[in-house]
Amino acid sequence: MFFASDNSGPVPQAVLDTLAEANQGYTFGYGADALMDEVRQSIRDLFEAPDAAVYLVATGTAANALALATLVEPFDTVFCTPMAHIEEDECNAPEFYMGGAKLTLIQGPDRMTPEGLTASIESQGNRGVHGPRRGAVSITQVTEMGNVYSLDELQTLCDIAKSYDLPVHLDGARFANAAVSLGCTPAEMSWRLGVDVAVFGGTKNGLMGVEAVVFFDPAKAWEFELRRKRGGHLFSKHRYLSAQMAAYLRNDLWKDLAQRANSKAAHLYDGIRKRNDIHVINDVTANMIFFQAPRGVHQTLQAGGAKYHVSGGDLTEGPADGLLTGRLVCDWSLPDTEIDRFVSLLTTA
Amino acid sequence: MFFASDNSGPVPQAVLDTLAEANQGYTFGYGADALMDEVRQSIRDLFEAPDAAVYLVATGTAANALALATLVEPFDTVFCTPMAHIEEDECNAPEFYMGGAKLTLIQGPDRMTPEGLTASIESQGNRGVHGPRRGAVSITQVTEMGNVYSLDELQTLCDIAKSYDLPVHLDGARFANAAVSLGCTPAEMSWRLGVDVAVFGGTKNGLMGVEAVVFFDPAKAWEFELRRKRGGHLFSKHRYLSAQMAAYLRNDLWKDLAQRANSKAAHLYDGIRKRNDIHVINDVTANMIFFQAPRGVHQTLQAGGAKYHVSGGDLTEGPADGLLTGRLVCDWSLPDTEIDRFVSLLTTA
Amino acid sequence: MFFASDNSGPVPQAVLDTLAEANQGYTFGYGADALMDEVRQSIRDLFEAPDAAVYLVATGTAANALALATLVEPFDTVFCTPMAHIEEDECNAPEFYMGGAKLTLIQGPDRMTPEGLTASIESQGNRGVHGPRRGAVSITQVTEMGNVYSLDELQTLCDIAKSYDLPVHLDGARFANAAVSLGCTPAEMSWRLGVDVAVFGGTKNGLMGVEAVVFFDPAKAWEFELRRKRGGHLFSKHRYLSAQMAAYLRNDLWKDLAQRANSKAAHLYDGIRKRNDIHVINDVTANMIFFQAPRGVHQTLQAGGAKYHVSGGDLTEGPADGLLTGRLVCDWSLPDTEIDRFVSLLTTA
Amino acid sequence: MFFASDNSGPVPQAVLDTLAEANQGYTFGYGADALMDEVRQSIRDLFEAPDAAVYLVATGTAANALALATLVEPFDTVFCTPMAHIEEDECNAPEFYMGGAKLTLIQGPDRMTPEGLTASIESQGNRGVHGPRRGAVSITQVTEMGNVYSLDELQTLCDIAKSYDLPVHLDGARFANAAVSLGCTPAEMSWRLGVDVAVFGGTKNGLMGVEAVVFFDPAKAWEFELRRKRGGHLFSKHRYLSAQMAAYLRNDLWKDLAQRANSKAAHLYDGIRKRNDIHVINDVTANMIFFQAPRGVHQTLQAGGAKYHVSGGDLTEGPADGLLTGRLVCDWSLPDTEIDRFVSLLTTA
Repeated sequence: MFFASDNSGPVPQAVLDTLAEANQGYTFGYGADALMDEVRQSIRDLFEAPDAAVYLVATGTAANALALATLVEPFDTVFCTPMAHIEEDECNAPEFYMGGAKLTLIQGPDRMTPEGLTASIESQGNRGVHGPRRGAVSITQVTEMGNVYSLDELQTLCDIAKSYDLPVHLDGARFANAAVSLGCTPAEMSWRLGVDVAVFGGTKNGLMGVEAVVFFDPAKAWEFELRRKRGGHLFSKHRYLSAQMAAYLRNDLWKDLAQRANSKAAHLYDGIRKRNDIHVINDVTANMIFFQAPRGVHQTLQAGGAKYHVSGGDLTEGPADGLLTGRLVCDWSLPDTEIDRFVSLLTTA
Repeated sequence: MFFASDNSGPVPQAVLDTLAEANQGYTFGYGADALMDEVRQSIRDLFEAPDAAVYLVATGTAANALALATLVEPFDTVFCTPMAHIEEDECNAPEFYMGGAKLTLIQGPDRMTPEGLTASIESQGNRGVHGPRRGAVSITQVTEMGNVYSLDELQTLCDIAKSYDLPVHLDGARFANAAVSLGCTPAEMSWRLGVDVAVFGGTKNGLMGVEAVVFFDPAKAWEFELRRKRGGHLFSKHRYLSAQMAAYLRNDLWKDLAQRANSKAAHLYDGIRKRNDIHVINDVTANMIFFQAPRGVHQTLQAGGAKYHVSGGDLTEGPADGLLTGRLVCDWSLPDTEIDRFVSLLTTA
Repeated sequence: MFFASDNSGPVPQAVLDTLAEANQGYTFGYGADALMDEVRQSIRDLFEAPDAAVYLVATGTAANALALATLVEPFDTVFCTPMAHIEEDECNAPEFYMGGAKLTLIQGPDRMTPEGLTASIESQGNRGVHGPRRGAVSITQVTEMGNVYSLDELQTLCDIAKSYDLPVHLDGARFANAAVSLGCTPAEMSWRLGVDVAVFGGTKNGLMGVEAVVFFDPAKAWEFELRRKRGGHLFSKHRYLSAQMAAYLRNDLWKDLAQRANSKAAHLYDGIRKRNDIHVINDVTANMIFFQAPRGVHQTLQAGGAKYHVSGGDLTEGPADGLLTGRLVCDWSLPDTEIDRFVSLLTTA
Repeated sequence: MFFASDNSGPVPQAVLDTLAEANQGYTFGYGADALMDEVRQSIRDLFEAPDAAVYLVATGTAANALALATLVEPFDTVFCTPMAHIEEDECNAPEFYMGGAKLTLIQGPDRMTPEGLTASIESQGNRGVHGPRRGAVSITQVTEMGNVYSLDELQTLCDIAKSYDLPVHLDGARFANAAVSLGCTPAEMSWRLGVDVAVFGGTKNGLMGVEAVVFFDPAKAWEFELRRKRGGHLFSKHRYLSAQMAAYLRNDLWKDLAQRANSKAAHLYDGIRKRNDIHVINDVTANMIFFQAPRGVHQTLQAGGAKYHVSGGDLTEGPADGLLTGRLVCDWSLPDTEIDRFVSLLTTA
């Protein structure tokens, strides 16, 4: 019962097969492999963006930090939420890659609100040289709390950014889960809204470690290439990144995997809702569930073999009725029997 | 006839097999996987260094830049040769990761000389606050020009570094080729000489993309971990890095692959020497050959299908007898028939 | 009626006199001047810190950024308030000098609270390698909102920092104003509380542009010197910085100037309090007054010649009774007649 | 007999007078002072560059590093000579401000040669993403070895830079000494040649610490302002920088001071040439003399009270006839009697 993360499970056989397919003969390195040509074209087709510049890197942190560094200057600030991965989980990588640019945290609920974004932009960048200058807006879809912005919500945020002439970065580590949840196309969830750079994540959705960074305006493409190399993120044997992403794009595997993950979460959610005393705090439309439950319930679940992160207090020490928050993440490979086992444990806890 | 690089060939089946082996069930990410435990222990055993801190990253540039950043401060300089990969082929990654520290280039022949190193150290770091301060010595084994330092040569260089209290970084992108060439153990080519941090390269010797960074004194280990994450080089699905390195270490695969590559180069060298008018400019004891030949010879070879880098002038334009330098790199997988074909082309060119 | 800033007025004659005194003959540069010896000893005496390392720089931003960079690593975060100068008014200088380290903003009132500091520390630095690591606590005395921490308040904050093994940086751009306000010695307001590095500001208190950075533990002194030079903040003709600071320290000029500034603010405050409809929002014990007044009042004051910053809305557009916040800063040189004129304008506005 | 540096002497009375003049009443800070308006206009007039953006900073290191950071990207390299101040005497400040960009050192004699520059540019920036990219050319006039480029020499170097589309930075710490030596106008020695950014130095020529950074194309002006603030180099009480530079520009003080310094060096040179066994190794047309003399001669000079830097070996230990190089720098204020005393000592040594 492994609900700890969507980076904990195996990759589908198709990924291994494409790696084996790629492992034939000699090829030029550093992105000049034939599979990258396929990937580039597939992503352009998928995003309906024939001019897009497409790059692969191996980690989400690299994808975000490099994309932001390409968009902003070191005397700028990037607007994001306090829970954003770039703020919480990247050990200052964005600041490092951006040369010391700042993140300005937008207070408010999990999903950035138009009011919060506007207030935050207004409060920064009006101090002239005392700076920082306004740099970019970074939106995470699916959010770190498992919520999915509607297309209308995204449109409003992008419109605000554009009204200040700020570029928009989309952290799409769970891009596929969101697109499937919204039933929209990649184009509808990116450049058509005004997104300038999207991270089309693969790692959390069944790949070993590949994220595509998609620049809808290729003007900054060469700069990105130099920054990627300078960050040590250009693979000499690039074909093994290409192969993973090629597998992901062929036959809509990315969509298939995300659908599986999302529906497993929905299934799990159905089970959890059976208990009235457990409060699910996010909208479960993608692949994550955050639920508040008494410490004793968490203890029973984990003693029974469920693995997931708990926050809000110590799991082992404290009153049995103290409320703690558990995070359940479903990946494509999670066996339904494990979900059933979890729900069964929960209903008897 | 692909002699362009040792990052152009396929990986051995054992690597794919171990990836498949690793692709079972759920595991914690970020280096907490069981295969990493195996890798850590194997490298400690291999290097006879039971306390060594061992980390994996996916590229050689990341390995070098992160290792150096852990050794030096941003107001320091690192001593290396003008041809060092960290100077020539990493697009300022070392400077970036070191926060703006400098590389001081030691003039002289391809292999750093004791006199050159001493003179360079003496010329830097004696200007007090006008700096920079002396930071570290970085040695590349095998050099970028295909030469292998003897253990005595390395010992002398390390002794000089130590006499100035400077740590030593070993860029071992081709560590295996060198160890096989010298017939020495990894310990003999690293910490026993005074090397503080060694990069034990896998990518150029048959892996998809993994380098081990080995700190013989683990005092800086935690700092390295934070710097790796901050650089976006910590893999969430770390098991797929572990798996490659595990395959490499099991049954001395690393040694076997390097032996193959080196002996293919020796075979090739035997063929090239048959022509008196071609001058091989490095000591061919590892897996690279640099040879000077008339432009016309290079044109014939490349027209015949040989792929390799040429420097020193334009391949297509210029007098037929103008001398250009070709670089031939052999990887483990190069078919002997291709070598024979090349030699045959050469002798008839 | 210039209340815009304490960096707007002239310097006392003593400063010009000491510059002229320093302007004799030849001397070695870069801090090796005799006046710097005097300054170093005077500051050690003043702070009762015989081992302190003392450095001069020309701007407060440089003083703060260099001090913090010496205390923390680039993968760290520094805890401060949202209004701190290092966050609001230094255009990412701290992040730049710290190599990309982050500032974590402690929510709450103007003066950092123990609860706020503890909560903020607890919320950061518990995510292992996902970082950032906890770096330092930065306290501003006098705060940017014109409030003065009591010694007890400072002691509590320092104790919290120490309980987490975090160094404390004191942004003392208005150190003198605070010490005079509290009636305490420099030692009592710095190392005796646990402060590791204090900025002893001169620029806002009558110097042309000099701040002393005082390290109570000199272990990091050499690193600071290298960082200062690397930042371009080491003056070759250092004697002209020394001279200003020497003038400041002789005959307790620093204290005299701060007393004047503070008492001018007190005088001004007395006048402002006469109007019941004006709300002063800070504790006026140093040299700044923040007051809320209707837009119309601000318009009358500024039309009458008063110069000061207004925030919270547009000065010229909006309803006459809309509340805006004015900031009045008194420096040592402000003529009492100007204060009287301001009060007179206010009472008739 | 203080020949150690041109940052060792006093400033002329006119500078103190203008500081006193500036020290009247209240003014806005951060460059919005009236004296800065005068300075800006005077420099535009002096350089015949009505659109130039003009900024003041307090140190030469800051001027160079900020100017270069504005011209290049962090994945670039800057071409300069091995003796350039930016390489030798700024403790990695350029690399720091440029975000880790590299300096590529052009081998050859003290004055950069066209062949050397071309070869250096050709050797860098042709490796695509393996970088670095070509960034800028930095020329030092007067060189650190006391030589002055002719206008023709500068023109040739600028033309080469332009043929590669590279901007040119002129490190003019001794701009005035060079212009006086060449008898040319500031325009002739800067933008008319193709210089994009010139540092018009004041500190080494009689000011306390001010350098003007002149952008002939103001397109990057706002970026420079943000970078200056971010570096902690924007003075709140900016008028005291303005005042120094205003004094420097009024009545051609800058030219007068440089003429004095240069003629003192010429006077000194006349004396030195009387001894046949002393070899002056630079062209003495500005204010510096580098001379080779036996150790014994240096010992006699220094024992007699002459203060200057010696390089090439230990002054006190070694054979009396060992050749060491002495550096004599004349500033505007050097008494002629001291020069005569030095020459007298020398001729009897």
